[in-house]
Amino acid sequence: MIGKLAGHHDTIVALATAPGIGAIAVIRLSGEQAIGITNQLFTGKDLREVAGHTLHFGMLTHPQTRKAIDEVVVSVFHNPRSYTGEEVIEISCHGSPYIQQQIIDACILCGARMAKPGEFTQRAFLNGKLDLTQAESVADLIASNTAASHQTAMQQMRGGFSRELKALREQLIRFSALIELELDFSQEDVEFADRTQFYDLVSSSTVTVQHLIDSFSMGNVIKNGVNTAIIGKPNAGKSTLLNTLLNENRAIVSDIAGTTRDTIEEILNIKGILFRLIDTAGIRESVDAIESIGVQKSLEKMREAGLVIYLFDVNEYTADDILAQQRMFEAEKINYLLVGNKTDLSSGVTQKFATIPGILFISARNHDHIEQLKDALVEKVMSGSINAEDTVITNARHYAALQEVMRSLLDVRNGMDNKLPGDLLALDLRRCLHFISEITGDITNEDRLDYIFSKFCIGK
Amino acid sequence: MIGKLAGHHDTIVALATAPGIGAIAVIRLSGEQAIGITNQLFTGKDLREVAGHTLHFGMLTHPQTRKAIDEVVVSVFHNPRSYTGEEVIEISCHGSPYIQQQIIDACILCGARMAKPGEFTQRAFLNGKLDLTQAESVADLIASNTAASHQTAMQQMRGGFSRELKALREQLIRFSALIELELDFSQEDVEFADRTQFYDLVSSSTVTVQHLIDSFSMGNVIKNGVNTAIIGKPNAGKSTLLNTLLNENRAIVSDIAGTTRDTIEEILNIKGILFRLIDTAGIRESVDAIESIGVQKSLEKMREAGLVIYLFDVNEYTADDILAQQRMFEAEKINYLLVGNKTDLSSGVTQKFATIPGILFISARNHDHIEQLKDALVEKVMSGSINAEDTVITNARHYAALQEVMRSLLDVRNGMDNKLPGDLLALDLRRCLHFISEITGDITNEDRLDYIFSKFCIGK
Repeated sequence: MIGKLAGHHDTIVALATAPGIGAIAVIRLSGEQAIGITNQLFTGKDLREVAGHTLHFGMLTHPQTRKAIDEVVVSVFHNPRSYTGEEVIEISCHGSPYIQQQIIDACILCGARMAKPGEFTQRAFLNGKLDLTQAESVADLIASNTAASHQTAMQQMRGGFSRELKALREQLIRFSALIELELDFSQEDVEFADRTQFYDLVSSSTVTVQHLIDSFSMGNVIKNGVNTAIIGKPNAGKSTLLNTLLNENRAIVSDIAGTTRDTIEEILNIKGILFRLIDTAGIRESVDAIESIGVQKSLEKMREAGLVIYLFDVNEYTADDILAQQRMFEAEKINYLLVGNKTDLSSGVTQKFATIPGILFISARNHDHIEQLKDALVEKVMSGSINAEDTVITNARHYAALQEVMRSLLDVRNGMDNKLPGDLLALDLRRCLHFISEITGDITNEDRLDYIFSKFCIGK
Repeated sequence: MIGKLAGHHDTIVALATAPGIGAIAVIRLSGEQAIGITNQLFTGKDLREVAGHTLHFGMLTHPQTRKAIDEVVVSVFHNPRSYTGEEVIEISCHGSPYIQQQIIDACILCGARMAKPGEFTQRAFLNGKLDLTQAESVADLIASNTAASHQTAMQQMRGGFSRELKALREQLIRFSALIELELDFSQEDVEFADRTQFYDLVSSSTVTVQHLIDSFSMGNVIKNGVNTAIIGKPNAGKSTLLNTLLNENRAIVSDIAGTTRDTIEEILNIKGILFRLIDTAGIRESVDAIESIGVQKSLEKMREAGLVIYLFDVNEYTADDILAQQRMFEAEKINYLLVGNKTDLSSGVTQKFATIPGILFISARNHDHIEQLKDALVEKVMSGSINAEDTVITNARHYAALQEVMRSLLDVRNGMDNKLPGDLLALDLRRCLHFISEITGDITNEDRLDYIFSKFCIGK
C-alpha cells in the first residue's frame, strides 16, 4: 500500500506563507521530531507535554549562539489530527525575511531538513488524509484567481470528483470480481455476472466518463483563461471596444501566474473567466489579405487563439462581405464571434445582415449591448453555464487517464457485443480499473508522485 | 490615561502575512466581535464556547451566497492574552490572493472593518501590552534584514531601551517630587532634596543620555546601511575590488526595502552592515579634477555618501599625491578610507607611504588583506564594535526627544551651578520628564500615535 510507504520519518521544515515582508510569517514543520526540534529552540513551556490544537507564546533562541531570534506563537497539532497526518508545528513569527531564515536555519541545525515543493501535501496523501485528486486540487486552489477557478478547485478538494470516480470504480470492481470468479470455474461454463446488468453499467459509465472528458475544455478555460484576439480593420473600433471592456473588467495582471507579458496585451475578467487578449499586431485583416503573403501565419495565430472576435463597421460592410469572412473562419476551424459595431450611426442593421445568424450588434462608443457581448463571450468558451454542482476536470493528468478509461470501457462493450469470452473482458476491465485508480491515487508509483508534487510551491 | 482611551471597540481585520501566493495565509481580526464575526462564517464548532489559545479546523462559507470559501484553521486568543490585548482570531487559509480577499470581504460583511496600517500594534500599545518604544521596534523587527539590525530591534522590542529610560525617569521623578514639595514649603526655606545627590544624578544622567544620543549614528547605520562610494582612477582596480567584495558579500537586493535602484549599484552585507555602493559615474577623480568645473558637484556627492573608499595604485602614486588627496578630504569633511591597491606588483610599499598613517594596503587581484579591509570598513562606520548588551537608538523620533532630554538636563545642571531657586529647577526637570515620557509613550496624544503607527504595514 502506498499509504504505508517507509522512509518518511524525517522532519521537514519550510516557510508556509508567501515570501517577503508581512506582519507575521508562518514556518511549518512536519514529522516525528517536529515537536522535539521546536522544543529545543523554544523557551516557554515544554511543548512535548502540551495538548494538540493549542497555541503557545514564547521566545525562540538560536541553538548555538543562544541569542534571541524572535517572540513567536507556536501551534501544536498531534498526529493524526494535522494537515499531513504527522506531528505538525506551525511557528508564527514576525514577518521579516531575516527572521524567517534564522528560524528555518535553527530548525535545520536541530535536525529538520528543508521540505521539497509540495512535500507537506504529499505526506498528507501518503498518510491517507487526502486522495490524489484532492491533493492536486490544493495547488489549484492556491493558484485560483477568479470565482470560477476557485469554485472548481474547491469542489475537487472537497472530493466531488473522487466521489464520482469511486462510485464507478466500486461498481466495476464488483463485476470484475464476479467475472474473475467465472474464470476460476471456467470448465463449468457458469455466469456469475449478470451480462445484461453489466452491459447497462458499462454503457452508463461511458456516458459519465464522456461527460467528465468533455468538461476538460471548460475546466481548462476556467483554470487558465482563453487567449482571445480582437481583429478587424483599423477603423472598426477595436480600441474603443477594448477600452469599454477594460474599464470594468480589467484583471490585475500581477495576480495572475504564468502571464507572458510578451504576447498578452491585457487580461479581462468577465464573469469569472479570464480572457487573455493577445497581441494582434501580426494578424492581417483577413478578408482583404486572403491572397497576400503572410496570410498563412495570420491563420495560424488565429487558430492558436481560443477565440477570435471579428469586429466590423456595420455601415461599411455588406452581408456578402461578412458571409465570405464567416466561410473562411468555418473552413479554417477558427472559433469566432462576429460583432457588428457602430450601430449608433446606422438603422435597419438587423435587416441588412438578416441572412447571417449569430452576429452581435453593438455600439462600443455608446456602450450599447456590451452586457450581451460579455454573455456571448462567456457562452462561446464555456459551451454551457458553470454549475456549482457539476464536476469539472481541470487537470491534464486526469484528462489523459479518463481517455484511457473511456477506451477500455468501449473495448469492454465491443467485446460484449462480439460475445468475447470472460477472460478477455476481464483484461479490459482490469485496464479500466487501473486508470481510474491512477487518478485517485489508489495505484501509483513514487516517481509519478514526486513529479505531481514537484509542481507545488514549497511549504505546501 | 492613554491606556484607557475609549472608541476602540470596533473589530478590525487584515491580511497579516505577506501579500501574494503562499501555501497558507493568515487573516487576523481583533476586537470585541472578532469571535462573533468569525463564528458567523465558520462551520465546525461554536467558537464562542471554546477556550483561548486553541486551534479549530472547519469550513468558512460566504455569509450571503453560503458558498464554501475555504477549509481553514482558526486560532482563538481571548482578551487579554492576545497580541492586542483584545479578543483576537487568526484564520489560517490556503494562500491564494483570491481566497484571502474573499475571507476579508466576508468578515467586513459581518461587521468588521479593514484595519489601518499598524492598527493592531497601536491597540496593543493602547491596551498596555507594549510601551511605545517596544511597539515601534516591531516595525523595525519586521524590516530587519541583517544580523545587526535584527539584534537592535529585538533588544528594543524586549524593552531594553525602555528599561534604561524608566530607571532614569523614576530617579528623576523622585527628586522632582521632593523639589515640588519644597515649593509648597517655600516660606520655610527647607531643602528636602539632597542637592549633592541630585547634582550627581543629573550629571550621571547626562552621560547615559549622551551615550544613547551618540548611538544613533551607529543605529542609523545598523538600520539603514551606509551609502558608500568607491572612487579612484580608471586603472586603480575598482572593478576588481568590487568583484572580490561582491563575491562573498553581495546582499540580496530584493530583500532590502527602500532600495533606490537608480542610484544604488550594489549592496554589500559585511558583518551585518549594509554598504550601499552608490553610482560613482558622476564623481570626478578628485586629485586631477580639483580645478576643473563640476568638481563642486563631485564633492557634494562624496559628502552625501557616508563613506568614500579612495582606491589608488601604489605603483603610480607618490606619498605627496596621497597627502594632497587626504588634505582635500579633511578640508571637505568627507569620511574617507585610503586604500592602496596592487601591492602584488610592488615592494616596500609601507615605507613609501610611511608618512601617511591609516592607509590600507591590499591586492584586490590576489585577495590580499581583503578581510582587513572589511574590518576597516565596519569600524569606520560603526566607531566601535556592536555589543549585544548595548542599547542602540535607531529611531529618529527617539533621537530628537533624547536631544531635548539632554538639553533639559544641562539646563538643570547649569541652574544648580548658578544656584537657581527650586521652582526654576522644577520647571526644567518637568520638561526633561516630559520628553522621556514621550519616548516611552507614557505621555502622548492620539495624532502623534496615528502618525507613528501609520508607518507600519497593514495587518500588524
